[in-house]
Order: sequence, then C-alpha cells, then structure tokens
Amino acid sequence: MLTITFLPSNNKVEVPSGTLISDAGSLAGIADLHLPCGGKGTCGRCLVELVEGEVERGISHLDSALANKNLVMACQTRITSDITVRIMESRDASMRVVGDSHFLISDEHLPDMASLTPLVRAVELKVPEASIEEHYSDWQRVVRELEKQLGQVEITTDITVLRTLASTLREQEGNITAFIQQDADGVNVKKILPGHNIAGIYGVAIDIGTTTVALELIDLASGKIVSSRTSYNAQIRLGSDVISRIDYARTPEKLNELNRLVLESVNDLIRDAAADLDINANDINAAFISGNTTMIHLLLDLPPRYIRESPYVPTVNTVPNITASEIGLAIAPNSSIEFAPGVGSYVGGDITAGLLCTEIPTNSDEVFLFLDIGTNGEIVLGNADWMLSCACSAGPAFEGSGIKCGMRAAEGAIEYVEIKDSGKDVSYDVIGGDKPAGICGSGLICLLGELFVHGVIDQIGHFNTDIDSNRMISVDNKSAYVIEWATNTADGRDLIITEADIENLMRTKAAIYSACSLIMENVGIDWNAVSRVYIAGGFGRYIQIHDAILIGMLPDLPHDKFTYIGNSSLTGSYIALLSQEHRELLAQIASKMTYIDLGSDPRYMDAYLAALFLPHTDINRFPTVARLI
Amino acid sequence: MLTITFLPSNNKVEVPSGTLISDAGSLAGIADLHLPCGGKGTCGRCLVELVEGEVERGISHLDSALANKNLVMACQTRITSDITVRIMESRDASMRVVGDSHFLISDEHLPDMASLTPLVRAVELKVPEASIEEHYSDWQRVVRELEKQLGQVEITTDITVLRTLASTLREQEGNITAFIQQDADGVNVKKILPGHNIAGIYGVAIDIGTTTVALELIDLASGKIVSSRTSYNAQIRLGSDVISRIDYARTPEKLNELNRLVLESVNDLIRDAAADLDINANDINAAFISGNTTMIHLLLDLPPRYIRESPYVPTVNTVPNITASEIGLAIAPNSSIEFAPGVGSYVGGDITAGLLCTEIPTNSDEVFLFLDIGTNGEIVLGNADWMLSCACSAGPAFEGSGIKCGMRAAEGAIEYVEIKDSGKDVSYDVIGGDKPAGICGSGLICLLGELFVHGVIDQIGHFNTDIDSNRMISVDNKSAYVIEWATNTADGRDLIITEADIENLMRTKAAIYSACSLIMENVGIDWNAVSRVYIAGGFGRYIQIHDAILIGMLPDLPHDKFTYIGNSSLTGSYIALLSQEHRELLAQIASKMTYIDLGSDPRYMDAYLAALFLPHTDINRFPTVARLI
Repeated sequence: MLTITFLPSNNKVEVPSGTLISDAGSLAGIADLHLPCGGKGTCGRCLVELVEGEVERGISHLDSALANKNLVMACQTRITSDITVRIMESRDASMRVVGDSHFLISDEHLPDMASLTPLVRAVELKVPEASIEEHYSDWQRVVRELEKQLGQVEITTDITVLRTLASTLREQEGNITAFIQQDADGVNVKKILPGHNIAGIYGVAIDIGTTTVALELIDLASGKIVSSRTSYNAQIRLGSDVISRIDYARTPEKLNELNRLVLESVNDLIRDAAADLDINANDINAAFISGNTTMIHLLLDLPPRYIRESPYVPTVNTVPNITASEIGLAIAPNSSIEFAPGVGSYVGGDITAGLLCTEIPTNSDEVFLFLDIGTNGEIVLGNADWMLSCACSAGPAFEGSGIKCGMRAAEGAIEYVEIKDSGKDVSYDVIGGDKPAGICGSGLICLLGELFVHGVIDQIGHFNTDIDSNRMISVDNKSAYVIEWATNTADGRDLIITEADIENLMRTKAAIYSACSLIMENVGIDWNAVSRVYIAGGFGRYIQIHDAILIGMLPDLPHDKFTYIGNSSLTGSYIALLSQEHRELLAQIASKMTYIDLGSDPRYMDAYLAALFLPHTDINRFPTVARLI
Repeated sequence: MLTITFLPSNNKVEVPSGTLISDAGSLAGIADLHLPCGGKGTCGRCLVELVEGEVERGISHLDSALANKNLVMACQTRITSDITVRIMESRDASMRVVGDSHFLISDEHLPDMASLTPLVRAVELKVPEASIEEHYSDWQRVVRELEKQLGQVEITTDITVLRTLASTLREQEGNITAFIQQDADGVNVKKILPGHNIAGIYGVAIDIGTTTVALELIDLASGKIVSSRTSYNAQIRLGSDVISRIDYARTPEKLNELNRLVLESVNDLIRDAAADLDINANDINAAFISGNTTMIHLLLDLPPRYIRESPYVPTVNTVPNITASEIGLAIAPNSSIEFAPGVGSYVGGDITAGLLCTEIPTNSDEVFLFLDIGTNGEIVLGNADWMLSCACSAGPAFEGSGIKCGMRAAEGAIEYVEIKDSGKDVSYDVIGGDKPAGICGSGLICLLGELFVHGVIDQIGHFNTDIDSNRMISVDNKSAYVIEWATNTADGRDLIITEADIENLMRTKAAIYSACSLIMENVGIDWNAVSRVYIAGGFGRYIQIHDAILIGMLPDLPHDKFTYIGNSSLTGSYIALLSQEHRELLAQIASKMTYIDLGSDPRYMDAYLAALFLPHTDINRFPTVARLI
C-alpha cells in the first residue's frame, strides 16, 4: 500500500499502487477535488501539484502538455510511490468520508468526557521501599498501593510487566505509573512505567469494513481523537464482498492469506497514526474493534465457512478477550483487544456498536429504527427493552455501480432532478455547476421519483412509451430516457437511464423497504409507532429524505424523524473504548437482540414483491406520495 | 545433555557429556551400583555392561584389561553419547533418589483419588446443531452445554480453541470433549477435541532445584504418575548455588542464558516423559511448578538481583497465572502454568509445596516443625493458624563435601560407627560390607556423637590429646583420629577425621539447630510443644535420628516424633496439580506464613554460637544426651 498526502490539509490515505489520485482523494474525503468531466481527463479541473513522489501520468493531450510543470490531473494520474500533492485553489476542506461521524451524532450519546472509564487507564503510585521486617515482594508492594486506590479487587498482571518491575520500581524512588484495565473480574496491570506525568496513554478504535478500514487513535485520558486514518481493506483484491471472501477462505492457507491482508491494512493504519503523533505503535495499549461478522472472523483467522452455509452460524459472536500478540495486532503485545459483540452471521459488531450512537439501547419509552445502508443493509428495530434485527442484500446501485449513468457523489454528478412538462423537459443541479458527467445516488433516487410522479414510468418501473417527448428513445431495441443530450454533457454523450437501470434501483429500494416492513410486522407495529429512523453508513449521508420516501425506499414519515449518523460502527467503537458503561451496554444490546433470517421467512418474498412498485403496491402506506400522484 | 538408560529397569537419566556412569546411576537412583572403593577404580565392583553408545574409558589397569569385553567400570567411565548399560548381578532395584517420595508421605496428605479436581479436566459434551430460528454461534452452543454441567459460571476460551471449533464441532455430530480449567473466577476452555473417550489428559508436576530438576507426568483423570524423570539443572555449570547464579545473572544477556538453560533442562524432561508414554508434549495441558525463589525467577526470566541485596525482596512471590507459551515451556502453548507461591527470597514455593505433605496447613491443635535440609536449610514452625519460616546456610558437609573422608551414601561408605574402650577401638558398618572407602552423612553424624560421648573430643569439638590411644595421630602438625588403618581400607590409606572436619560438621549442625531454636524463641514455645518434626530433602533420608540428637543437630525429642518425607516440593506440586482444595491451601499457607530474616536478628549469632557445642552450651536442652555423658 502507498501513502498519498494531500496538502494543505495534510490528510493522508493508503491506497494500492495504480490507484488514481482522484480515487484516493475521494477515499480521503478531499471534498474539493472536483471531477466535472466525470474523470475523463478532458476538463483539467482536477489539476493538483505533485510535490513529491513518482506517478504514472495519463496519456491525454492535457497531461502531456503539463509534463514539465509538476501539475498532474488527479483523474488520469496513477500513484506508483508514496506521494504528496497539493490541491489547487486551496479548496481542500478536509472532509473525510469516514471519521467525521462524531460531529453527526448528538452529544448525549457520547460518554461524559469529564469522567471517562477507558479500557485502559493510568494510575500514579508511590510504592514504598521494602524493609527487612516486611519482605513484601516488588509486585506485592505495587498491589498494596493499587488496592489503596482501587479498593479490594483481584489484581493480576503478566510476565512481561514483571520482567522489568524490579528496575522500574527503583528508577524514580518508587514513583511509577501503572496502566490498568479494570472490569467486573478485577484489575489487570498492562504496563508499569517509571515516574509520574506520563505523556499519554493511547488506544485505537477500529472499524473493519469489507471495503474500507478506518481507525482513530485516541488519547484515552482526554477522549480526544489525535489521529484518524482510513484505507482500503487489502482483502478487496481477493473478493469485493463478504460472500466472495468466504468462498476464497475455503482452505486454511487462503484463510490465512485473507487474515494477513486485513492485519496488514490495520497495522499500517496503526503505524501511520502512531507516526502522526510521533509515538511508537508499542505505546498504544488498548484497542476496541467493530466489524461485520465475516470481517472479524477473518481478522481472527477463524474459518468463516459456516457463516454462509445453512443455518448460517459463525464460530463466535462475542469474541473472548484476547491480547494483541495473540492475533498479531501491532500495538503493545499484551494489550487487551475488545470487540463489539455480534448477533449473528449477518448482524455483526458493526451494528451493535452503531447502536451506541442512537437512543435504542437506552430509551424504553419509544421505538426506533436503525438502518445501516451499504452493499448489505442491516436493520434494527426496537428500544432498550427489545430489539429485532435483520439483514438484506441491498446491492451497490445507489453507490453508482451497475447503473449506466451512475457515479459517486463528486463534481459533475447530478444530485437533483426535476421533470417538467409531462416528461418533455428536465432540469437538474450538478455538483460543481458544470456540465453533467453522471448521476449520483441521491440524484438517482430523485430521478426515479420524478419519472414516476410525472408519469414517465409507471408503478412497476416500465416506461410509458406513449408520452409525447423526444427524450424517450430506444437503445439496443429497449426504451431509455434522455436526461441530457450529448451536446450538454461532460463526455459528449447522451446521459440516459434505461429500464434495466430502473429495475436495478427498484430492487435495491424494495429490499430495504420490505426488510423494514417485515421486521415491523414481526412485532406487530406500524411505521407511525417509530419515533426516529437512524440512517448509518457512507451512502446514507447523501440521501434526500423526500425523494427516498417518494420511491418507497424510506417510510412516509415526517422528515424530522430521520437522523443521519455516519460511520456509527467506528463511532461506537470510539465510545466503547472510552466508557465502561457503554461496553456493558454493548453486551446487553447483543444479548437482547433477536435476529430474524429473512431468507427463511416465507412472507419476505411477498413483502419484497409488494415493494417492487413505486412507491408500493399498497399506496395507503405512502399518504403524502398518494397526494402527489 | 545425554541420556543414559539403565537395564534391566529401563530407568533413564539425563546428564552432561563427561559425567561418570556412577554419578549418573546415583542421580537415576540405581541403588545397586556399588562403589566399595569410593570410586577409585580399584575394586572392580561397579562393572556394568555397555549395551549401546560411546564412552570415554578410564586409564586404570582394570579398565584396560576389560577393553574388549563391553564391560566398563561405572566409576571410571565417562559418558560421551546417549548410552545404554546393563547393571550386573541384576541388583538394580529402580529406587530413585527423587520421585519415590510419594511412598514416604502418608495417604492422608494425598488428595482423594476418587474425586480429583485437577488443574485441567475433561468434560464430555453433546452440542446440538444450530438452527435457523436460534442462531447461536458455535461457541455459544458449547457454552450452553457447559453451563448445563457446571452451572452458571463465566466461561471463556482463547482464540486458538476457536480457530478449530467449527470443524471440531461438526466432525462427530457435536460430540466433543472439552479440557477445562475452573477456578473462583470461572471456567477457561483450554482445548476442544472431537468425540468422547479421549485417551488421556495429562499434566506435569515439576520441582526445579538448584542442582536437580525433577518431573512427574501425571494422568490427570486417575492421578497416576505415568512417567518420572530427573536430570541436572543445566545451569549448574554457571554456578553451583543460588548466590553464584544470582551473581551470574547481572546482565540481561546472562540472565537470559540461565533462563534458556533451565528451560532446556525442563523441556528435555517434558519431551522425554512424553516419549515414554508415546504422546506428544503438546498433549500435556497443565503444569504445576515449585522451586526456590531464585530458580523460579530464572525460569521466568525475572532479574534475581534484589533477592541477594538488602532488604532481600524478589520481584514476585505469587506468580500470576501464565500460559506455557509466555515462558517457553514445551507443553500445549495455551496451558496454564501455576506455581507454588513463595514467601520471600529464601523461602520459596518449594517450601510451601512441601508443607502440603505435612499436617502443618490443616491441623490447628498441635504445633509442627518442617526442616528441608540441603545446602540451604529452610525451616517452618507452626500449624494451620500460624506459620513462621526462616532459612539458614547449612553448607554441604553432610553431603560429604568439604570433609576429608566424606563421601555420598554408596557402597563402601561407613554409615554407622561405635567407639569403644575410651577411644582405643572403633567398630563400624560399611554399606555393602567390604573395606571402607569413606564416611557418608549418617556415618559422620554418628561418628561425631561417638567421639564426643567417649571423650575423644570435647564439647567444643577439640581433640582430647590426653587419651591413651594410638588412633590419635598428628597430620601436618594438627591432631586427627584414625577410624581405620590403611591396611583395612579400600584405597589403602588411613581413614581419618581432622579437627577441621569436625569444625565444619559442627558449623552445619549449629546452623540448623540455632535456626530451629530461634524460630521457636520467636513464638515463645519450646521443643516439647512440637508434636512432629518433618524432615524433607534428599539428604534427610539417611539421618539416624539418635545420632542427630546426640550431636545437637536435631532436638532431643522422642524418635517417633520425626518423619522423613523425601522430595516434598515435587510431591506438593503433584498434590496441587490434582486438587483444587490443595491449590487454595497453598495460597493460604503463603499468606499466613511470616518470614524471619535470621541475618538481621541480633540473637541469631548468640544462638548459633551456643549451638557450636556438643550437643549445646545448654545441656539441659538435651536431657537424654546428658544421661549419656
């Protein structure tokens, strides 16, 4: 993996060799790296200054012309070494795709920063010298001082701490700082350093996603995030989704290969985050990790095979406490690593951790819905007393994949569409304001709603070929609708949406809605009983609630009932790393939650088919939409 | 280290290259390997048949004459490869110096073999398959079945167990055997094997001595000792006693060298014991270890420096529970290793373990004395309510070292002496009945008493040169006494005892007695309050109680108050490995025991000087002796 550093923000991201600078910028959340032409190398708006490092330049005429000026086009230039680039026009806002989610969740969900109870904390001790009369061993005298501060608890340590204790204790006349981990079973001393006023005690919160790995280095005394890092999960080259990874891992050797790759990704982030702060990775003494069940199995070198074989059970949902050295995590070897507990094969610790960012685990009076939308969608319904969860395969359509004109939410993407004059005319907003290069997820949701409301497509998503509009064309003998003509698009080609695209989008929205409605049916409540809908995950951030309701993806509720909470898995790990109360809450969440396997529920197919309409076969479910059509 | 196998018993022992076969035989406890000439190579009584392997023959005329006959003299032949020898005359009784101590302690001290609670035990489970409805992970289903058998306890495991769980569980339709360790904190699952009727679950009891390492491989289900092994502690070449080892370990590199040597010794024994049973060392799942504080520090790679610097405190007395992999012990890597807790720098886990072989920790009504006599002597006085301990430097005089005519208790050694006719005549018994080659410890104690009772020496150990006996001679201008004339000794030289020898013996006996008496003075009780005196250690076995009282080494108590309990450290580890009750008892022993540093007690020198008389300056302490003189 190579590191690219973006100036002036100094944001860093790790990517494989050959990655386009623009893709790296997108991963690093560089909001102002615009691709108006959709990354075709034609507009020259994505020029960046190459400050340091080697790249493979593109072959467009513009690129050739720039060869001597240290300027490269981000969308055409591939990274072949560690590089540093400067974003032109100083528009780099340092917005990160992952890692900014703490700003999206309300303070009430964060632990009290004034009285943190992190996984590991520092205790300063003054240990008296031994005396002939007393004969307490070095360790016994440490224990006695700890007991004065902590009360009568069982205090243990490990051999590595004892190996340096005799000299550490005598280095500053018995003044030491002990890093301790305390739980219901007692206290474990993880490290003893000579003297007081230890500079810092650090932990890492880690979210291991199928595609992206995100890490926050935390000062455990203050709760402050001192470094944030994200990179691809290096496993992606061996399979893009959970199922393909499980298939790959069928032999111990291949499982081990996946294990090494994800460890490499995580350990690179750890070392880079440590380097950001000029500390050693060995100075990090705790880790809290969340991730889906398959990712956690691969991180632990556990065979994931039975996750995808009926009856779909993992080896473990609640990972026993382990130390860094046991799994090869590159922090202090005897550090405890805790994991957000999973519920089942398809509702993992990323979901239980995510719930810490919501009212669900603490409020018994109302009912809440939690939606983590990605390639897989996970749904939780409930409150502090009961929780139901399920998973659905949403597919990547809203991420622009599998849609002819789909693209990520970057400059040049249509993010808002209006259909006028019974389908004859279209107006739209483009991110950046230039010619459109494609349509991003929010634009697609909006487009689908507009096409439907204005009668361009019918309830089942078929084009109404009778409408009087020259935008209705035929491509390869199939109907399509022109959003913008070639003359006005960035790449000089018609920007169209096909019936296959619409089907794809409808399958995705139907999967999400039907899963939600079925889980509610299981409890016997309807949408109006839901006080709040939490939307988590990278994609959710760009959804326009109005549009999502219009197409029947989200329920027809007042808009202020929806809250976006970002990468709640990472935020949940951050919270759990800092708060004993929340760690206990996580265990309660996992034990209370019931998992429903939609695949084995005969009603699911009915609910899914009923949701393959716009907005739904049962229009009464969408009263505000009904008034529009 | 090389292995020597003695036929016909098949006893094996490991020794360094260059060791005499006779010394190896002594270490292996081959009782019938006689050295009537004291190992001078003159009598030819120690001939053994060399069945296999290479040796370095001696240079005596007898040895040369035997060169073509596969016969070698054990006392003259050094081992240079793994060898097998056959003891002539089939007198090998397989008596071992270490490892037979179980037969010396009374059954009441052993755990109830019908209901053992070993450190690790096997539990057979039938784990139901998962179902779509339930979604319990593999580990959760194992936990649920364990809870049915063990009740509501906290159940944990480690990642190595989980890595094979999915396949193990499915190999025999959910039938598994779990190896579990249970204590007050809960249950830890150490290993899971497919199926029931697992052949065996094994543990090792280990005694790490300064000179000798002893191991017993135990079938934990039955409590049966399935293999016993002893060898030298490979550290001996870097220092013969505790103090020299501590001095050697002043740098981390040299500490590490000592650490590797003792691990090598222990791991060789483990592998050999496993091979005896045709199992893999990885099939051993628990270890209980006892040893003196310095040996345990060296085994754990803990710097021992402060053990011998005032105020003499070790890093640790109660070693936290650790796993085999943490210290490099060659049994299953995640095996728990527990240690007999120490009390202080000079009263270690070998002593607390040894007390398990006595009534001290369980009887509150009487008072007992425990004496572990070796190069260092450790003494414990007390009962279940209170215990006082101290250590004294006894020196190796009774092991024959530092005494002109001293030798180990082997054939040719005078073990009993009678002085007659006011010192004019001497009669004695020789082990084996031939001409005497030297005097062993019991003979020396007996001789010292006889010389005193018959007025050959006075109360302070000086020869009475006035006695009318030609046995009183002068050697190098100093007085000496002839026990046997050259014509009747094995080596054709006068067998004499010098005043220096007598001083040496008196220092040893004074150190032991004064330590005992001072510890009693601390409590304010006298010898008559002691119900029983337990004598532990290799040397103790040969002591004649009558003689030891006569010289004032042991107190003047009825003889039936003395009990010899052998290598009680090893036996204690054996007991603790098999019994939870005794493991808890060990912790209580260590916490109750008060250590008294004799060196810092001003009364010790007085008590020692008072004991440098025969039997003592205060003859009233020895009423039965008083009647004899």
